[in-house]
Amino acid sequence: MPLSLSQLAESTGAELCGDGACEIGRAADVIQAGPGDIAFVYTAKYSQYLTTTRASALVVSRALAEQCMLPCLIADDPRLVFAKVVALLNPTARPPAGIADTAVVNPNAKIDASAYLDSGVVIKAGAIISAGVYIGANSVIGENVTIGMNTYINTNVSITRNCVIGDDCTLHSGVVVGADGFGFVKDGNSYFKVPQIGSVLIGNRVEIGACTSIDRGALGDTKIGDGVKIDNQIQIGHNVEIGHDTVISACTCIAGTVKIGANCLIGGAVGIRDNIEIVDNTIVTGRTFVSNSITTAGVYSSSTLMDTNINWRRNASRFKELDSLAKRLKILEKKIDDKLK
Amino acid sequence: MPLSLSQLAESTGAELCGDGACEIGRAADVIQAGPGDIAFVYTAKYSQYLTTTRASALVVSRALAEQCMLPCLIADDPRLVFAKVVALLNPTARPPAGIADTAVVNPNAKIDASAYLDSGVVIKAGAIISAGVYIGANSVIGENVTIGMNTYINTNVSITRNCVIGDDCTLHSGVVVGADGFGFVKDGNSYFKVPQIGSVLIGNRVEIGACTSIDRGALGDTKIGDGVKIDNQIQIGHNVEIGHDTVISACTCIAGTVKIGANCLIGGAVGIRDNIEIVDNTIVTGRTFVSNSITTAGVYSSSTLMDTNINWRRNASRFKELDSLAKRLKILEKKIDDKLK
Amino acid sequence: MPLSLSQLAESTGAELCGDGACEIGRAADVIQAGPGDIAFVYTAKYSQYLTTTRASALVVSRALAEQCMLPCLIADDPRLVFAKVVALLNPTARPPAGIADTAVVNPNAKIDASAYLDSGVVIKAGAIISAGVYIGANSVIGENVTIGMNTYINTNVSITRNCVIGDDCTLHSGVVVGADGFGFVKDGNSYFKVPQIGSVLIGNRVEIGACTSIDRGALGDTKIGDGVKIDNQIQIGHNVEIGHDTVISACTCIAGTVKIGANCLIGGAVGIRDNIEIVDNTIVTGRTFVSNSITTAGVYSSSTLMDTNINWRRNASRFKELDSLAKRLKILEKKIDDKLK
Repeated sequence: MPLSLSQLAESTGAELCGDGACEIGRAADVIQAGPGDIAFVYTAKYSQYLTTTRASALVVSRALAEQCMLPCLIADDPRLVFAKVVALLNPTARPPAGIADTAVVNPNAKIDASAYLDSGVVIKAGAIISAGVYIGANSVIGENVTIGMNTYINTNVSITRNCVIGDDCTLHSGVVVGADGFGFVKDGNSYFKVPQIGSVLIGNRVEIGACTSIDRGALGDTKIGDGVKIDNQIQIGHNVEIGHDTVISACTCIAGTVKIGANCLIGGAVGIRDNIEIVDNTIVTGRTFVSNSITTAGVYSSSTLMDTNINWRRNASRFKELDSLAKRLKILEKKIDDKLK
Repeated sequence: MPLSLSQLAESTGAELCGDGACEIGRAADVIQAGPGDIAFVYTAKYSQYLTTTRASALVVSRALAEQCMLPCLIADDPRLVFAKVVALLNPTARPPAGIADTAVVNPNAKIDASAYLDSGVVIKAGAIISAGVYIGANSVIGENVTIGMNTYINTNVSITRNCVIGDDCTLHSGVVVGADGFGFVKDGNSYFKVPQIGSVLIGNRVEIGACTSIDRGALGDTKIGDGVKIDNQIQIGHNVEIGHDTVISACTCIAGTVKIGANCLIGGAVGIRDNIEIVDNTIVTGRTFVSNSITTAGVYSSSTLMDTNINWRRNASRFKELDSLAKRLKILEKKIDDKLK
Repeated sequence: MPLSLSQLAESTGAELCGDGACEIGRAADVIQAGPGDIAFVYTAKYSQYLTTTRASALVVSRALAEQCMLPCLIADDPRLVFAKVVALLNPTARPPAGIADTAVVNPNAKIDASAYLDSGVVIKAGAIISAGVYIGANSVIGENVTIGMNTYINTNVSITRNCVIGDDCTLHSGVVVGADGFGFVKDGNSYFKVPQIGSVLIGNRVEIGACTSIDRGALGDTKIGDGVKIDNQIQIGHNVEIGHDTVISACTCIAGTVKIGANCLIGGAVGIRDNIEIVDNTIVTGRTFVSNSITTAGVYSSSTLMDTNINWRRNASRFKELDSLAKRLKILEKKIDDKLK
């Protein structure tokens, strides 16, 4: 169902410019857009499209508004306005409440009447499934797990005993919450498993990407704050604590008992060693190895930069001489200083 | 069922040498092989086995053919011939067409009569399952997904709404295709989710390894070209495009809106940052961090080389002095040049 | 059910000190512990808690025993004793034997009467499920797979044809064992798949973390030794062999045909390239890239250390000059030596 540009302006709080009656059916990229579409131009780099796009309307930054001849929404934060426009044009429709025939619900679980459990879903004893929850096909909810209101759990998700998921969360397919943390103690020639008796406590408005795993705590709990956004293929070890509204990109590996503050941005493929702390508002760039605690907010990095293989070989082999090079340089400096005296 | 060496020669196009009636039942490693087995020797390094192997026949490179006293298949590309021999000796048998009792198929899905849906499979409305498709137990195919002819989907796979999988693809267990891309815009103190309304379009003859996730596009689609081979535990972000016949090894992390050309070889555990492009025929070695676009085909690397921990500590700590070392060296060079004048 | 401290002493072999009748119901962290809890203090760093904890009893190292006024268990290896205490206080209760209504068991599979198969479990023809095995909901056990005694398989696990899992193993949710190894041979402009006809053989007492994948062998088998502990999100390629009691932390990527010895410790996010060997008793620290074989036991590392982004940029850009810096330093040394002669 199309919406008028003035409806979109009103719902997003953006400033309307031009024909508010203009009907918008779809959000699209400014290059691919056609009649009936709304697209966006945020930066001068794309300003050429202000005049060449076939879109019916645009979301534009205030700086570009004057150059825009199409009906448009002018916004101080055009990315946010456009995201809201996309959401308005693509309302997510959940199926009506109900329990699919092949779902298996333990009689001692408590399922709100407004929840939806798809085919093959398994709910164990003591679980609480709150109002408006959606659980996708073949997902398994363990004993005494609580799922908060309106949380959306996609297909083939596993949540193990006692874990708590807050309200308005989204768990994508293949997510595992509450597997045992990785703890073993040497016992003679082999290992004795440290029982992982803690749980996982996940706040509200948390998003967890496909194939991500969050381990349960050993003694205490693993804790994910409100509004945390976790991408795909991420490992979160036992007893990790993550502050509210921190964002973590794909393939990041967080070892046990790491404490990450609130409002952090952790890039993709980052490694964070065990038992360290990262303060609020920290940014860690992609591929960094966080080898010690970060006590001052800022931007942190490691990794090396790409080169042609032939150059890289030459330089990488010199890495093993770094300490020796530094020492030789110092000796040379001294020799010359002595000589020049 | 054993095949004669001459049958194998004919089917693979290799040159037969020796007793074509020799019956071959199994492909094996040259060291473990016994009577009835065929093994291979490609390189001089293994030429000793030409005479000591207990195999009944060998696939050999042309260069080694003269030294081979056993019945053999001589090939310019012995790896390819041997792979074909293994395939001939191990035909994959799919179960007869049908839908298992506990599969749940929406009446508005279209299932070809020659497809096989195993137990616990869930097929949503509007899905199209083409001729010869195999879908393994407990896999879930979302609304309006299309699965092309003869595609093999193993167990516990999730494919989300609207995605398109081509013909003759193989998806291993635990694969997730079409989870939401990772897009959020700051909205006051928290984040607003950018709706991910694009899809995933996968070509023909694509292989996707276990536990790999491929996100749907934000506005446009994520696109995987024909013949692309993707290993396990790989992350492919939203709106990534991968050209035909590119091969990507395990644990590689590809951020959003990356464009990889055709015929590339991307090593294992590579990280590729968002919004960059890699031209056709590029080779990226394992563990490289691709921090900027690659505009010329070639071999590219980063990473550092392993050392004993004690040496590594010394050298790694000097990394933080690199810039200073370089500057001090320059000063020293100048001092000496001045002095020597 | 609480246990007395003397019962705990007896079962763990620790030395009892103080009131053995003291009833212990729960294991807890020394800071959070309260009445009825047992906690631990292993190191002098935490010795302040010996007097301030509200726990009823403590596990302490021998060195700290004298300072402990509470009833306690004194141990030479307090970590091991405490782990055993936690296990005693948290016995794992498995459900009674049986097969859930929605499990689908092929008539040609052999299921021990003492095994438990949860809802949605699928067992294929020829599979052998031994005594005391637990298989979690929606897991799929392929043709001719053998699962050893008392092995615990959590939810949504996939085990593919012919694989063998030993006794007393634990496989966490989302694990995939036996997907095809990643092998392709160039065939003209595209790739021919090398059939992966080997299997995966897993020993006894192996633990496999959530979302980890272990590929089947190409010709021979992938082999995981007794007592090996494998964390989450790990990739183990085809024909890898891992010796007994080796421990591998999360997100590590092991390429094909790697041979890792016994009693090794492999850190998190390590990358190990294909076709190399690592001897017994080797330690590889987190994030290392193992680019060649390790022939002498020891501790090995690579990676670079984190810095502020601004410093890192300066130094990382100099990495590309390393070889040139080294050469320039050598020239300078010679010049000065000549001069000083």
